[in-house]
Amino acid sequence: MQHSLSIAIDAMSGDLGPASCVAGAIEVLRSTPDLEITLVGIPSVLEPLLLTASKALRSRVHLCAASQIVGMDERPRDVMRHKKDSSLRRAIDLVASGQASACISSGNTGALMATSHFVLGMIAGIERPAIVANIPATGGHTCMLDLGANVSATPVQLFQFAVMGSVMAHDGRRATQPRVGLLNVGAEDIKGHDVVQAAHALLKRSSLNYCGYVEGNDIFTGAVDVVVTDGFTGNVALKTMEGLARMQSRVMHEELTCSPWRRLGSLFALPALRGFRQRFDPRRYNGASMVGLAGIVVKSHGSADAVAFAHAVRLGIDEARRGVPSEIGMTLKAQAV
Amino acid sequence: MQHSLSIAIDAMSGDLGPASCVAGAIEVLRSTPDLEITLVGIPSVLEPLLLTASKALRSRVHLCAASQIVGMDERPRDVMRHKKDSSLRRAIDLVASGQASACISSGNTGALMATSHFVLGMIAGIERPAIVANIPATGGHTCMLDLGANVSATPVQLFQFAVMGSVMAHDGRRATQPRVGLLNVGAEDIKGHDVVQAAHALLKRSSLNYCGYVEGNDIFTGAVDVVVTDGFTGNVALKTMEGLARMQSRVMHEELTCSPWRRLGSLFALPALRGFRQRFDPRRYNGASMVGLAGIVVKSHGSADAVAFAHAVRLGIDEARRGVPSEIGMTLKAQAV
Repeated sequence: MQHSLSIAIDAMSGDLGPASCVAGAIEVLRSTPDLEITLVGIPSVLEPLLLTASKALRSRVHLCAASQIVGMDERPRDVMRHKKDSSLRRAIDLVASGQASACISSGNTGALMATSHFVLGMIAGIERPAIVANIPATGGHTCMLDLGANVSATPVQLFQFAVMGSVMAHDGRRATQPRVGLLNVGAEDIKGHDVVQAAHALLKRSSLNYCGYVEGNDIFTGAVDVVVTDGFTGNVALKTMEGLARMQSRVMHEELTCSPWRRLGSLFALPALRGFRQRFDPRRYNGASMVGLAGIVVKSHGSADAVAFAHAVRLGIDEARRGVPSEIGMTLKAQAV
Repeated sequence: MQHSLSIAIDAMSGDLGPASCVAGAIEVLRSTPDLEITLVGIPSVLEPLLLTASKALRSRVHLCAASQIVGMDERPRDVMRHKKDSSLRRAIDLVASGQASACISSGNTGALMATSHFVLGMIAGIERPAIVANIPATGGHTCMLDLGANVSATPVQLFQFAVMGSVMAHDGRRATQPRVGLLNVGAEDIKGHDVVQAAHALLKRSSLNYCGYVEGNDIFTGAVDVVVTDGFTGNVALKTMEGLARMQSRVMHEELTCSPWRRLGSLFALPALRGFRQRFDPRRYNGASMVGLAGIVVKSHGSADAVAFAHAVRLGIDEARRGVPSEIGMTLKAQAV
């Protein structure tokens, strides 16, 4: 069988270590017959993790040796200077050399972004990379960016984020272009500061399916497919969601278990509670893409288990099959702005 | 009995109209023996709503006639020019003339802010007003500002928001000063844009109990008592919380009722579900204060019912008893910055 797709995995990354990266990768190999995977890391650590895989699967796994590991707290600058033989760097190198179509890492976000930016460079015409992810919403999900690659954005950069978000949200199955909204503090034209107003003007003149301003609650209503904002606001919004969801889940657990009667009663509601938990399972939403780069890089959550990591790998595969970077380049060129 | 406290109520405000404003006000009168209330609005509308109140309560209610009503979509500028006999304007006038110690309105936020700013003016030394509210958090709540009075903020303004938040969060029962955090995209000193970094430097030199940068999730952890941010980020974060909570509550309802068995099972978990709902009941968190003004103005949610409106009135009373505006002035003067 000919293999058409190769993905590089930074297998030493994440809080749970290589075991969950490798297990997640094997899981995706199983369901994706034309996939090859290169596990990047320390061979003596990775080889034992492959022993349980079948010979057929094993034949589609390659190892790429890297002697260093990037810590979660290391400064991007130090990583770029002193960790040139790290699994993070080597995985990105494989994308740069064309040996892999995408790379996936659960590692240090800042180091991954800085190294990817340095090694892969940008898509022609895109000024800054952005972090994009799917947020659960009514009727599916909302594609949101920038979630923190930059601490601010110019109007032109917000416009480019909209182009990238539009490409990311276009799954090819729908005939219509994704609806794009610009995050603001109100829906009226007069709302917001100079930067969003200037971006609003650019977007109105574009050929994107631009729907105007949206507010924080619209992230979840399904009113638009893409929510565009600067990396400061986007990062605060994302972490606000995470914090609220965590607190609510803790309070719900307290209320369900604070007495023997409550614990008994909660058993009867278990199917509903499980259904709820599944619909918001963060593992199903694992994987944030670093778009704008001239190559595909997916950041998996640091605490990702095998199921979550597999989801991030599938995200990378999907982007690779669709050729997202070149699609972004073409969509940008097609804009009249 | 001598009445020490008088509150003005914009009784024509809110989506539910005068009935819930008046019912909420009467409720607070009942539990606050030294309170007098002035209901501002159209007397022929308000009088029938007082018929069920006892004579004793009725003796502590005054009416102030105002012939106009401010619509929720009216522009602040138009309201200030053409609605000088509106219930919103007259209620603020009562604060300005000293006849009331605070005013409460469920009306148009922009018009309330602009009119209050124009009529009451600012506390000496404070550049911009801010909207502050309590957000449910582990172990109580977090006081957060600015939630949208301004679309941006300078470092000095963020510093002043921190002073105001510190005063608002100081309930007098605790010996220690409220812990103040500055919202950013990471906790390290190097994180964030120029404005937060400059505000961080000012706050480190202040005599506030400043704890450094916090992230979106820290709003809910109880790590700090006050979260300071600009009005754009704060408004997006607030509406993001509202949107997520609404979606989750809808999905939970779907999961609990999607089959007869689920509906039956959910009956057994009803006490827990009710307990959860009560802990996050938005009515308990109704009322956002417009701080920085030389007078107390509390904005109640447009959709507030009597219970929620009563909560906003109590917030105004608490601020009036503590003399929040003068306390802010003194705390600002005490800063070495």
